[in-house]
Amino acid sequence: MFSIKVNEHIQIHLIEMNHIEAMYEAVHNSRAHLRRWLPWVDQVKSIYDYQPIIGSWLQQFAEGRGFQAGIRYDGEFVGMIGLHDIDWASRKTTMGYWLSQQAVGKGIMTKAVDACLHVLFEEYQLNRVQINCGVENFESQGIPKRLGFELEGVVKDGEWLYDHYHDLYQFSLLRSTWLERQQG
Amino acid sequence: MFSIKVNEHIQIHLIEMNHIEAMYEAVHNSRAHLRRWLPWVDQVKSIYDYQPIIGSWLQQFAEGRGFQAGIRYDGEFVGMIGLHDIDWASRKTTMGYWLSQQAVGKGIMTKAVDACLHVLFEEYQLNRVQINCGVENFESQGIPKRLGFELEGVVKDGEWLYDHYHDLYQFSLLRSTWLERQQG
Amino acid sequence: MFSIKVNEHIQIHLIEMNHIEAMYEAVHNSRAHLRRWLPWVDQVKSIYDYQPIIGSWLQQFAEGRGFQAGIRYDGEFVGMIGLHDIDWASRKTTMGYWLSQQAVGKGIMTKAVDACLHVLFEEYQLNRVQINCGVENFESQGIPKRLGFELEGVVKDGEWLYDHYHDLYQFSLLRSTWLERQQG
Amino acid sequence: MFSIKVNEHIQIHLIEMNHIEAMYEAVHNSRAHLRRWLPWVDQVKSIYDYQPIIGSWLQQFAEGRGFQAGIRYDGEFVGMIGLHDIDWASRKTTMGYWLSQQAVGKGIMTKAVDACLHVLFEEYQLNRVQINCGVENFESQGIPKRLGFELEGVVKDGEWLYDHYHDLYQFSLLRSTWLERQQG
Amino acid sequence: MFSIKVNEHIQIHLIEMNHIEAMYEAVHNSRAHLRRWLPWVDQVKSIYDYQPIIGSWLQQFAEGRGFQAGIRYDGEFVGMIGLHDIDWASRKTTMGYWLSQQAVGKGIMTKAVDACLHVLFEEYQLNRVQINCGVENFESQGIPKRLGFELEGVVKDGEWLYDHYHDLYQFSLLRSTWLERQQG
Amino acid sequence: MFSIKVNEHIQIHLIEMNHIEAMYEAVHNSRAHLRRWLPWVDQVKSIYDYQPIIGSWLQQFAEGRGFQAGIRYDGEFVGMIGLHDIDWASRKTTMGYWLSQQAVGKGIMTKAVDACLHVLFEEYQLNRVQINCGVENFESQGIPKRLGFELEGVVKDGEWLYDHYHDLYQFSLLRSTWLERQQG
Repeated sequence: MFSIKVNEHIQIHLIEMNHIEAMYEAVHNSRAHLRRWLPWVDQVKSIYDYQPIIGSWLQQFAEGRGFQAGIRYDGEFVGMIGLHDIDWASRKTTMGYWLSQQAVGKGIMTKAVDACLHVLFEEYQLNRVQINCGVENFESQGIPKRLGFELEGVVKDGEWLYDHYHDLYQFSLLRSTWLERQQG
Repeated sequence: MFSIKVNEHIQIHLIEMNHIEAMYEAVHNSRAHLRRWLPWVDQVKSIYDYQPIIGSWLQQFAEGRGFQAGIRYDGEFVGMIGLHDIDWASRKTTMGYWLSQQAVGKGIMTKAVDACLHVLFEEYQLNRVQINCGVENFESQGIPKRLGFELEGVVKDGEWLYDHYHDLYQFSLLRSTWLERQQG
Repeated sequence: MFSIKVNEHIQIHLIEMNHIEAMYEAVHNSRAHLRRWLPWVDQVKSIYDYQPIIGSWLQQFAEGRGFQAGIRYDGEFVGMIGLHDIDWASRKTTMGYWLSQQAVGKGIMTKAVDACLHVLFEEYQLNRVQINCGVENFESQGIPKRLGFELEGVVKDGEWLYDHYHDLYQFSLLRSTWLERQQG
Repeated sequence: MFSIKVNEHIQIHLIEMNHIEAMYEAVHNSRAHLRRWLPWVDQVKSIYDYQPIIGSWLQQFAEGRGFQAGIRYDGEFVGMIGLHDIDWASRKTTMGYWLSQQAVGKGIMTKAVDACLHVLFEEYQLNRVQINCGVENFESQGIPKRLGFELEGVVKDGEWLYDHYHDLYQFSLLRSTWLERQQG
Repeated sequence: MFSIKVNEHIQIHLIEMNHIEAMYEAVHNSRAHLRRWLPWVDQVKSIYDYQPIIGSWLQQFAEGRGFQAGIRYDGEFVGMIGLHDIDWASRKTTMGYWLSQQAVGKGIMTKAVDACLHVLFEEYQLNRVQINCGVENFESQGIPKRLGFELEGVVKDGEWLYDHYHDLYQFSLLRSTWLERQQG
Repeated sequence: MFSIKVNEHIQIHLIEMNHIEAMYEAVHNSRAHLRRWLPWVDQVKSIYDYQPIIGSWLQQFAEGRGFQAGIRYDGEFVGMIGLHDIDWASRKTTMGYWLSQQAVGKGIMTKAVDACLHVLFEEYQLNRVQINCGVENFESQGIPKRLGFELEGVVKDGEWLYDHYHDLYQFSLLRSTWLERQQG
């Protein structure tokens, strides 16, 4: 499994087709939890719905437009972290993530995002990483705040969530800020 | 020419391959002017550089991800207006535009953007349209301001411009606001 | 809607995916009428049958092989006009069209074809436009006749129509003839 | 070599990439002869120009849209015979062919076209085969005439030939006529 | 039908979509016989299962990666012979084949493989042809043995056969050996 | 960098486009060394030759047909290990590898192949892994021998090497043998 080791417990790995069952289970067992802030949960009705999706994620990776990765905690599939395409001309990207209900509260995602920032700023030499969170999704907001992201503004009606639009906070972190923080 | 009539002088039309010369001329004759805020000007060295670009624009249109349109003033190609892909799940898009130097100052772009808003909100039934402008690009900012867009925030280092990143103002207009304005 | 304005009532516009319902309704409400001369009517059983077809039409447009356009009369979808690919080497194409039952008899199609001839001869600089009509489809034949097309011959068994082949009249109009008529 | 045996001397075979040299030689040694009626001769400047063309021919065959075949006389590549796509809905196609200068006058092409008609009418179960010839290309016209094709009309300006358009005779043969002739 | 004539009775032809029924019948009528050594028999449940397969075979041929051919005995479809891609860098390929139950025992396949060797060594100028057979498939082994192939080794668990892996004999024939045999 | 950690010094990672320079350097600095047994060295004349190759490797990965990975020793790019497509029906693959001159002799490749075997047998649940080595490439042969592979036979003229064919030893390791070795 091609992966990034975060610490002794946490591993981030590229999603391949053979992870389909573990991924589906993680989603299926947290439907109510995930549905609060993620618009795609109801579309994943069975394992077969994930086949074309994983295919498109691998295609995204093959074309250098970013990765979609699984997060493992002690080997168990507990969430995902991924990029909404990379803009190489302006060297920027937007990151998204989710965690299954039982994995919340252990600091897993903050550490996973932090590890991905190393890949994005050091390896890919990006200049800017953006994270959008629902304005009332307090758990999700904690992650960019803890990692030194700056709140840039509010994206009005930024996302459709089953039966309503909701606003998103737009956070960003620049390479220069991140480098300072690394040295500080 | 499949077009949207803005008024007696202004016409917005889908760009097809046979417009390549008129479009190149418009860019070539305004290089210094356009280069101030557009990152792609130096890449367009000859008419041939536009062939794959127009091909990808037509492909974008064919896949329902938005249009790239030319703006004509009394028949002359004076600029462009286009969409950075449509997010149908959240029914939102981001709009961009440019005008050749000699066409500036006639209110052409405000009227063109306004006409496009009708297409986006009425025909495509989108919910949100975003426009990003350089924080020091005062001419460009005037357009969303005049059309009722709201300033949402500042996108730090939002775009690479030849030798530096610059910040962008992020404006948005919601369908509900636009409808009120139409009736007001 | 990117369109060609024919007159105060008639508009010809590129077909995009959001026109699928209006187009299906126009066909569905004229099935018996259209079935007499069009071989594809029975294949369009629901709105979903049109999704891949519209996709292929937009792809045809994106590749510069011609357009498929809707005809609106006072805003209502009443028919279509389109090209069977463009032969750029010999600068020629073949045009087809249909009109819903209730729109027949108002001269709509003659005016729509005439407007398209301007696009084909002036904008695309084609040299030859062909129209094929069933030898007993008298309404359809009237259009090329009124617009100065010349009868070139009979295409024996030119088209399969559900349970039999039927012959087609082959009409053509050259750019030179069309230019003379414009000036006459 | 997958081929159709016409008689002891003549063989028609699908063109594969390894025939590129023999095919180029046949064209190159008859340039002046072929140029009189074929529009593409000047575009074939070297063997490399044929690589993408053969690729597209094989793709046409793979998609069931017809074949492009070489004609061998005592093993030597002397010409080609091929289809301009098959219209399966109306079970019809148009056939084209050319012969190198030194192979003319031996009745090769009439026999080759006749052999192909067996494939088209019997194996593919087509209903109609069309052949177009320049109105002054008397040699070419002799072939459909000898094989029972009927003249349907004149395609005005049917083809661009380097510096002018020329008219084409349109011939056709229906399956019913062909079957009668076979039994007669 | 583009074919290679083996003798008065046997013909090898490229498989096109219109052969789908004859091919399916040949497989369907020999299921028990073919199932013993071929892993794909149970996947072919109806004629429709062959549509994408034939499409991929034609695509293989179009890309110059080898052919999949039907074998006819007195016109009847009795089996297949094909290549598992051609390695043009090392000019080698692997050949496979099957014969319906009622056609076994007439020496058909030995003659068909021999005819294909002429195509591969003379026309395609390959240097090496490989054939793999189940170590207990004595009928199949007879063919490479009779044609001068050399046994190179045993491929352990070389193929999955419904519920178990089985070992394969790996035979090869080099062009130099084949040329000697031709002259001998 | 998505990677498999072999030990404190050795890391195996999926090759992405941003590794192109490090990979080219590793090849370029070992040309004479690599040329002895690898047929592709002369084709890699500049960094640009690797762009389409890396693209096709990423595509192979995206389609689940195997990976092409870089080997790092203390962070430096010293070689590659990859799969020649995966046969999922028979759950088998063939593995290849190379090491730059200065990295030879440290046991790097044996450990890297061993680590990959864990991925192939445990994660991908393959049943058989094959390795081919030139019969006189003693260094390369040492690796499968040390890891418990069995010699199955000699592939005559198995590979073209610039100006001659050479024979290959064919080694294989079955999952059952590997599992025993793990427990032993």
